[in-house]
Amino acid sequence: MNGAESLVHTLITSGIDTCFANPGTSEMHFVAALDRIPGIRCVLCLDESVVSGAADAYWRMSDKPAATLLHCGPGLANALSNLHNAQRARSGIVNIVGDQATYHRPLDAPLTADTEGWARPVSGFVRTAGTAARVGADAAAAITAAHTYPGQIATLILPADTAWTDGGTPAQAAAAAAATQATQAEISQAARILRSGEPTLLLLGGHSLRAAPLQDAARITQATGAQMLAETSNARVARGQGRVPIGRVPYPVDHAVHTLKDFKHIILVGAVRPVGFFAYPGKPGYLFPPDCTIHVLTRPDQDGPAALAALARELNAPPVSLPSPGPQPSPAKGAISPEAFAQSLAALIPEQCVIVDEAITFGRGFFPGTYAAPAHDWIALTGGAIGDGLPMATGAAIGAPGRRVIDLQADGSAMYSLAALWTQAREKLDVTTIIFSNRKYAILLGELAQVGANPGPTALNMLDLSNPDINWCQLANSLGVPAARATTMDEFNELLTQSTNHAGPFVIELMT
Amino acid sequence: MNGAESLVHTLITSGIDTCFANPGTSEMHFVAALDRIPGIRCVLCLDESVVSGAADAYWRMSDKPAATLLHCGPGLANALSNLHNAQRARSGIVNIVGDQATYHRPLDAPLTADTEGWARPVSGFVRTAGTAARVGADAAAAITAAHTYPGQIATLILPADTAWTDGGTPAQAAAAAAATQATQAEISQAARILRSGEPTLLLLGGHSLRAAPLQDAARITQATGAQMLAETSNARVARGQGRVPIGRVPYPVDHAVHTLKDFKHIILVGAVRPVGFFAYPGKPGYLFPPDCTIHVLTRPDQDGPAALAALARELNAPPVSLPSPGPQPSPAKGAISPEAFAQSLAALIPEQCVIVDEAITFGRGFFPGTYAAPAHDWIALTGGAIGDGLPMATGAAIGAPGRRVIDLQADGSAMYSLAALWTQAREKLDVTTIIFSNRKYAILLGELAQVGANPGPTALNMLDLSNPDINWCQLANSLGVPAARATTMDEFNELLTQSTNHAGPFVIELMT
Repeated sequence: MNGAESLVHTLITSGIDTCFANPGTSEMHFVAALDRIPGIRCVLCLDESVVSGAADAYWRMSDKPAATLLHCGPGLANALSNLHNAQRARSGIVNIVGDQATYHRPLDAPLTADTEGWARPVSGFVRTAGTAARVGADAAAAITAAHTYPGQIATLILPADTAWTDGGTPAQAAAAAAATQATQAEISQAARILRSGEPTLLLLGGHSLRAAPLQDAARITQATGAQMLAETSNARVARGQGRVPIGRVPYPVDHAVHTLKDFKHIILVGAVRPVGFFAYPGKPGYLFPPDCTIHVLTRPDQDGPAALAALARELNAPPVSLPSPGPQPSPAKGAISPEAFAQSLAALIPEQCVIVDEAITFGRGFFPGTYAAPAHDWIALTGGAIGDGLPMATGAAIGAPGRRVIDLQADGSAMYSLAALWTQAREKLDVTTIIFSNRKYAILLGELAQVGANPGPTALNMLDLSNPDINWCQLANSLGVPAARATTMDEFNELLTQSTNHAGPFVIELMT
Repeated sequence: MNGAESLVHTLITSGIDTCFANPGTSEMHFVAALDRIPGIRCVLCLDESVVSGAADAYWRMSDKPAATLLHCGPGLANALSNLHNAQRARSGIVNIVGDQATYHRPLDAPLTADTEGWARPVSGFVRTAGTAARVGADAAAAITAAHTYPGQIATLILPADTAWTDGGTPAQAAAAAAATQATQAEISQAARILRSGEPTLLLLGGHSLRAAPLQDAARITQATGAQMLAETSNARVARGQGRVPIGRVPYPVDHAVHTLKDFKHIILVGAVRPVGFFAYPGKPGYLFPPDCTIHVLTRPDQDGPAALAALARELNAPPVSLPSPGPQPSPAKGAISPEAFAQSLAALIPEQCVIVDEAITFGRGFFPGTYAAPAHDWIALTGGAIGDGLPMATGAAIGAPGRRVIDLQADGSAMYSLAALWTQAREKLDVTTIIFSNRKYAILLGELAQVGANPGPTALNMLDLSNPDINWCQLANSLGVPAARATTMDEFNELLTQSTNHAGPFVIELMT
């Protein structure tokens, strides 16, 4: 058994059954091993940003790591921006990066790069396999690292000779250490603050945004008069009918500061203290007022859901009837607007669908308009590195089979990872991509306005995606995905309904 | 004057007039400054792999650095694989990476990443501006570094507050140190080897592959009976009628070893010792025989052209009449093959065009078939990080205005950077892209065969780009580029002729 075969056996016995792959020459023995040893579904992606974004969303929907297969330092480099997003989502991923043979690396062949150096900033675990005999144990350690609560990126670099040399020994990943729990003292302290009557916010992140812990959070806030919010960008939120509606800290700094201005206490549950995405002259970096005290109930690496349950018990908070989001609305008609769009979404999305949110500017107000939608999960761009929506939709569909994925997709961001559409077509994934075709970097026009200058042609040219207009229907078709254009809400409603009633991918170009 | 304005003034007074840009929020003050201060052509690219590939080819064709404008660590990350290629081409580039404000970075906002860490492996110079007052001097140092012979990547990280704060002071880049020269002793030593009569190879790289030094190399080899070759992958080679024909060290290890097997001496002129792109079990890493001695006439950072001229003088080598490449062929007819394609290329490309070579498998034999083409420059993928052809064609067209660019483009590689076509359409660039549509990773099928296994469906699935077939004409059209398909050489000949006779971009999908 060679090292590559021991790696495949180790992945399989450790519970990994999916590999998002963009292979190259140095990975041919690994490809051959995946071919010989059944048990892993290999999903070909035509660029590595698709690989990493898909693996991220696969984790978010399945709570299991996928493997990735990447080719040398530059292949890893192409994956980095979506690995950055995955790291901010605290997703578990096992990267396998094929690389130069150990004895060939000193010769500095053209594809030689600093693979470890590029991996380190996004990885909780980086190791280069040194011998074929060690590949199994190294892979097992990587898988354990990926499972470390709440999830980590683990990067195993596989020099070609460690893959092809005999002496491979499969291993099984050890169980990752369980999440640490909040102490009774921490729970009592949170209870004291909540009972104080002072304006208090429960700020939730990570697993606390699943359905059950949201119910506990609602019990707590209803019993104490506190409020609750999710962080601005979240890996996954349980939403819709039968779930507790929860808002987000707004993205624009002024809105966020306004939202948080009256709180005297913020209790963090798997969240971090709220900061602006960027600094602006004369605006604060922290979004909460100076006299607001931050308390940590659980850090992101601690068990937030258990702490919420314990806190609800400590407060003797009675079970809650869910606040009604009102009746499910009818689809909006007429002209396209963000509000009309949210209304149609709430009316038409299928039960248990997965929403992928890279809507950027157009989508800032979607949350309130969709509380009354059928039950769904909402996964969003977490690290601000745009180009993640199409890849995440691809991985979510594989991680949550049987559930329709609806990708709310800004056009500028979509241009980074078009190859994802091809993988959706090849794998016949149930993904509806809705391109908000406004033909500009709308977010940046807003930012430029804040700079104060009256933009001239050079600036406008750098923020404008028209000239030429991108024909998204043609583009999707060219990659094997059927598509149609909607210029009114009525047309959109019909296309969305059609696409969710048919298997396979579809693209709707929404002319906004 | 704020820091961003001082940066723009510094770029302009230091001779930089082109910026390939993919801006984000943290760069808005730089965008505003580029808008207010005329003198820099800003070229919008819709993903950063286009930015970096374009800047690389711009340098190769103009011998001047372009600036890039990148957004935070993840924006730089997307540019890394083509920066890797640029580094291997020894191109000069001035990266401007906007980033979190200095005082905001410790707050770890979602887009915060290890920008310096990612930049370092591909950069000869990395600096983070610390204050607005220093931005001008830091930019000047970066520009000087980019010009350092033969060319370097210089990365200047621009925290947002250093851009927007007043107190900016423009600077002018100091002249870079000139290339060091080979010593008389080194030239005499090379002459001794060449006069020895032992089988000797002049292995040329970098600037030694321009037209004039190739003539000196030809004088040397004709006077001494030595042979000459270029490295496998070259930043730029002067070729065609009126130029000295030169072959390349073959890519496949076996062919390369066979080509070099009889040499007792290899004299490196701006080249490095030839090594395999990858290691293979039982095959050598160095491509020259063990009893071959390597001599360095000039390192890549020394003046190869001057050393060749001095060596020709030292040898009293008479001027040469160029070896005739034979008459320019007629276009090939009938079925498509690599040989037929090279023949038509030699027949039909316009004088002084620029060939961009990311043809991969299909293009391995193009060199011999195109010696008799009209005079042209040939720029190739240098670092093995595929996805560089469309971006390089974009930058070459801007760096060599008035010259038609012809991109020989493998289909698998093209999928990494499709957004380049949009920039070609927007900027109305004279680029003809020829997609070799074989719908597979042909190079990897060859590599997998070497592994020895009889590939099963899992392996074949990972190397197959059909299912669905990509419709390249539709894809190009969707991004604003006209396109047509050729299924015979006759159709290809007509399309190539048409496209070179009309301004603007065109895509030919060649069904191979």
